[in-house]
Amino acid sequence: MAGPGVFIAFEGGEGAGKSTQVGRLEAWLTGRGVPVRTTREPGATDLGGTVRSIVLDPANTGLSARAEALLYAADRAQHVHEVVAPALAAGQVVVTDRYVDSSLAYQGAGRSFDLAEIASISRWATEGLVPDLTVLLDLPPETGLARARGRAAADRLEGESVQFHQRVRDTFRALAAAEPDRYLVLDATADPDALAGAVAAGVGALLGERR
Amino acid sequence: MAGPGVFIAFEGGEGAGKSTQVGRLEAWLTGRGVPVRTTREPGATDLGGTVRSIVLDPANTGLSARAEALLYAADRAQHVHEVVAPALAAGQVVVTDRYVDSSLAYQGAGRSFDLAEIASISRWATEGLVPDLTVLLDLPPETGLARARGRAAADRLEGESVQFHQRVRDTFRALAAAEPDRYLVLDATADPDALAGAVAAGVGALLGERR
Repeated sequence: MAGPGVFIAFEGGEGAGKSTQVGRLEAWLTGRGVPVRTTREPGATDLGGTVRSIVLDPANTGLSARAEALLYAADRAQHVHEVVAPALAAGQVVVTDRYVDSSLAYQGAGRSFDLAEIASISRWATEGLVPDLTVLLDLPPETGLARARGRAAADRLEGESVQFHQRVRDTFRALAAAEPDRYLVLDATADPDALAGAVAAGVGALLGERR
Repeated sequence: MAGPGVFIAFEGGEGAGKSTQVGRLEAWLTGRGVPVRTTREPGATDLGGTVRSIVLDPANTGLSARAEALLYAADRAQHVHEVVAPALAAGQVVVTDRYVDSSLAYQGAGRSFDLAEIASISRWATEGLVPDLTVLLDLPPETGLARARGRAAADRLEGESVQFHQRVRDTFRALAAAEPDRYLVLDATADPDALAGAVAAGVGALLGERR
């Protein structure tokens, strides 16, 4: 179902610079005449906007961890159905800010569920669609949280403990270590220009292979 | 996790009289001094109200079948966590208008998914909580749909074909046939008083066994 396009996901903790690097990659691809579609989870569709408003609302303290995980999965199913799969079928490069790994890291490790159960639900939601390349922007949680807190009011996930975010980081790194050929792991404390260059090099190599 | 309470689900197609019989059973139990909590899916919690408004809105034609199934599962997870499990732990008789079987029938059979996948997601959402008794109010879809259409504007599910609702009915009946000791299957074209009497007899026997 992936179609002729190329699917790239950015993953990482709060404040890692994902949205900045998604924007830089979009500009780089557009400059080379490559058709690109940027998107994100949660919240890229009407349904996703509703899901995002529920799961990120600090007032929703009564939301069960399983309900939260299933809402993210519903957002992801709609996102793949409505945005990602059609763009790939049309031959675009799709660049998403967060995808399955974020559920594995936040719901799986962070909330102490069995990773295999979360992975199974995500696989069902996406009909097994896996990115061609996942860019992990890796940095210590203290650094990322300080950046995120400087930016805006803390949402519900940012209100979790540093230990929680350390488990999230560990899970992201373990997923990348298990599939080194499909991941590009970058030190997100580096200069944004240097990061953008490393991402462009990795994506350029991937696009070259496809031709 | 079921606790000392008793969990009863009503299942069946549109217009089968589930809400009427839930109300009759509530009155009968209350009259005998049995603490009862009636509830429903979807929509028993704040989250469920949001889910219900999304999945039953005839305008949501773009909602993917997988996203819909996952939204019902999220509603169910929150429902069990917030309503059903606490009431059972407090020793109440919990009577729900729809539960897991409705997902199996509508998403599984109706939308042509593998029943085992839907069952697996529901099991995860509910932490495996199964009703002590499921009352299936069985009737031909033509009869039920005519009743439902006389009552209110058709919602999205009621707008499906008769063939769809026939597959739903077949799935409900197959689930009941697989576990005859846990199901009470009643002909929902019967008089409401006769149905209420049959339900009371079945529930009375169940409560007697528990003492």
